Amino acid sequence: MAQAYWRNGMNSSATFSLSFRGYPKNRAYYAVAGIESALSHLEFMQFTEQDIAFLRSTSELDPQFIDALSVLRFTGTARAMNEGMLAFADEPVVEVTAPLIEAQIVETALLNSITFQTSALTKAVRIKHAAGDRPVSEFGARRAQGRDAADYAARCSAIAGFAGTSNLGAAARFGISTTGTMAHSFVQSFEDELSAFRAYVTEFPEASTLLVDTYDTLQGVHKAITVAKEMERRSELLRAVRLDSGDLLSLSVQVRRMLDDAALGYVQIVATGGLDEYSISQLVSDGAPIDGFGVGTRFVVSADAPFADSVYKLVSYAGRHAGKLSPGKTTLPGPKQVYRTARGGKFAGDVIATAGEIPPTGSEPLLKVVMENGVREAPQDTIESARTRLASQLEWLPPETTSLTNPTAYPVTLSAELRSLQAQHAARRSGDN
Amino acid sequence: MAQAYWRNGMNSSATFSLSFRGYPKNRAYYAVAGIESALSHLEFMQFTEQDIAFLRSTSELDPQFIDALSVLRFTGTARAMNEGMLAFADEPVVEVTAPLIEAQIVETALLNSITFQTSALTKAVRIKHAAGDRPVSEFGARRAQGRDAADYAARCSAIAGFAGTSNLGAAARFGISTTGTMAHSFVQSFEDELSAFRAYVTEFPEASTLLVDTYDTLQGVHKAITVAKEMERRSELLRAVRLDSGDLLSLSVQVRRMLDDAALGYVQIVATGGLDEYSISQLVSDGAPIDGFGVGTRFVVSADAPFADSVYKLVSYAGRHAGKLSPGKTTLPGPKQVYRTARGGKFAGDVIATAGEIPPTGSEPLLKVVMENGVREAPQDTIESARTRLASQLEWLPPETTSLTNPTAYPVTLSAELRSLQAQHAARRSGDN
Repeated sequence: MAQAYWRNGMNSSATFSLSFRGYPKNRAYYAVAGIESALSHLEFMQFTEQDIAFLRSTSELDPQFIDALSVLRFTGTARAMNEGMLAFADEPVVEVTAPLIEAQIVETALLNSITFQTSALTKAVRIKHAAGDRPVSEFGARRAQGRDAADYAARCSAIAGFAGTSNLGAAARFGISTTGTMAHSFVQSFEDELSAFRAYVTEFPEASTLLVDTYDTLQGVHKAITVAKEMERRSELLRAVRLDSGDLLSLSVQVRRMLDDAALGYVQIVATGGLDEYSISQLVSDGAPIDGFGVGTRFVVSADAPFADSVYKLVSYAGRHAGKLSPGKTTLPGPKQVYRTARGGKFAGDVIATAGEIPPTGSEPLLKVVMENGVREAPQDTIESARTRLASQLEWLPPETTSLTNPTAYPVTLSAELRSLQAQHAARRSGDN
Repeated sequence: MAQAYWRNGMNSSATFSLSFRGYPKNRAYYAVAGIESALSHLEFMQFTEQDIAFLRSTSELDPQFIDALSVLRFTGTARAMNEGMLAFADEPVVEVTAPLIEAQIVETALLNSITFQTSALTKAVRIKHAAGDRPVSEFGARRAQGRDAADYAARCSAIAGFAGTSNLGAAARFGISTTGTMAHSFVQSFEDELSAFRAYVTEFPEASTLLVDTYDTLQGVHKAITVAKEMERRSELLRAVRLDSGDLLSLSVQVRRMLDDAALGYVQIVATGGLDEYSISQLVSDGAPIDGFGVGTRFVVSADAPFADSVYKLVSYAGRHAGKLSPGKTTLPGPKQVYRTARGGKFAGDVIATAGEIPPTGSEPLLKVVMENGVREAPQDTIESARTRLASQLEWLPPETTSLTNPTAYPVTLSAELRSLQAQHAARRSGDN
């Protein structure tokens, strides 16, 4: 495609709009993430010598076009919602304006960054919502779809306000909090469970969580109690026991009673094992005496919604609006802006408008210029500010929109000007046929 | 955990076994992948200076232990099934034997490599199975869960025998075949659809596929016919038109008739748009005149089964067998081997046995030594040999096992020796409690 543009001298300014069509099951909002890695891609995008050598070796492309690619950089403008903002279906999350070839060539990287990370952050928000005040930790790296997915899901868990991640690599990469746990193999590598527990609390006297289900959960709890009492004699406090299998509701009730009977009311119960927002919500509403949750696989792959229907569509080229009319896949033409209004402490609705028009009274524009002439705006966004922003957005979101099942749609309308533009565009294209 | 091992002088030889518990929905086999990247991790695993600096800065670990980590390398043995082998639930796919700390520390990387890639290869096999003789291409990078996932899914598609991938980066990285297509934005960036089609076929006269649904599919086909006729006058042949929306069955029938009526029987119809093994199988059984399929999102995230229940379990430490007895999560103790027997041109069943015992008559052992003393066996496996191996394995698989819905279980039994070992282990652990 790019070679055809190049040969036809088609490299005027193009605007592409990245948005989501509809929602995955049980969702009525997106928590936006992936903007930082997308912008980083735009900033540093180039064909390396290796890339160029590969393209030359495949010989399908014109050598002169490959020369052009070897010096290609992204020189355009990007307007985007910040990470942690909430977005709704059809709203542009990013708009890129650049010479056509540049704007086209970054498509896959932008969609790849923003689609998965937005799915992961949205999943994290749902899990946090289900857990309420109870801290949640992230243990999903082992089952993530690759190393990137593991790290970015951990980053999203930090934006959502999780307590920590077990992914040390992600912690080092992004500066987020870690949390540790012991595995069954740790218990198994010792002659007996009691020795394993004693060795573990020696290592981390202030933050020990003992995994009690390797052989028999209630027997494991008895041994944890023994160790907790030994710790008390050293003026140390066992932090928690962890349940990772079986019926977590009835086990947590039994374990709580055992701990309380042993005057260990301060020892917490942490639950893990195939958890997600649905099972956590059930445990919470059943009153399970669980003090914290760990989520892994179902979080890290966003198991009930492993993708979102993201698109990156040409909306303007060389001053001419573009749109697409395929059934169920229409695109709103032209560069746009999204305005959000609030009333009585809650968001009242969004308006998708053309980029130039006068904003609705009292509304906030959501797309900010984050890159100009291929250079990012300083100062760049941080995980901390994304976390604060997300928490505030969620406070303002109508609660029926956040329901974990069958949420109510949030009102998003098109401005009169955009509707009229869309109608003109459809009429023109239809005449063209 | 590793620090506790280190402080307690626990670094004797440990064996860990990586396997899958049960199957995701509608699956009764796994097509193994991810072995190559897992072995590559083992070979090059080390804490970089940056990693060490990060660990020192967090200050939760003993400085002397961090010194030990800074020189840690993997020095052990790995036995594994080759990529492209079929594996069944509970069968060890990889067994690692190494000093405990090394063997423990590689857990997350091994699971991360093998879990996702095996899910992706299994999905690719299912899609290929549904498509039969029709070629399938892979277009999923944009919606993959990160860059790694995009590249490894493309690699899996090549092992499964797909015709090509749109992921040029993966093609360069792994030496696999590429395939191209035009996007809606290409059509939109031209003044009209006909100009876009003409520009595209000029670029690739021998391999042009025209996307016809940007505005109106049947109108688009009329324009493709015009271009095909112009090409004939230049002794060129249009390769295909692509349908990406609407009712693919009825559209393909109409489009086939239009092409045939225009004496363009050689122009193929390619279908894309949210396809997976279920919808492809339906289109094929409905007799849709579609010559090739492109799959994207639902393939690349393995949408109906985005994870598999993979585990990496300690099975032996310091000469002592280890296992786990948590409900529904028991582990088979000790190092093992898997034997596969065939009868009348089909696999008849597998036996999971202890590593040392005499193989069943006429059976093939599936775990091969692929790494010793931290060094990989030469020659290393290739994508080409994995593809050949997989094709042969699938030919020998009982057909009822490959059904896309409710497949029949493949027979896997435990050897008498392993059963007896498991019983001894359970009795010993239970006595221990």
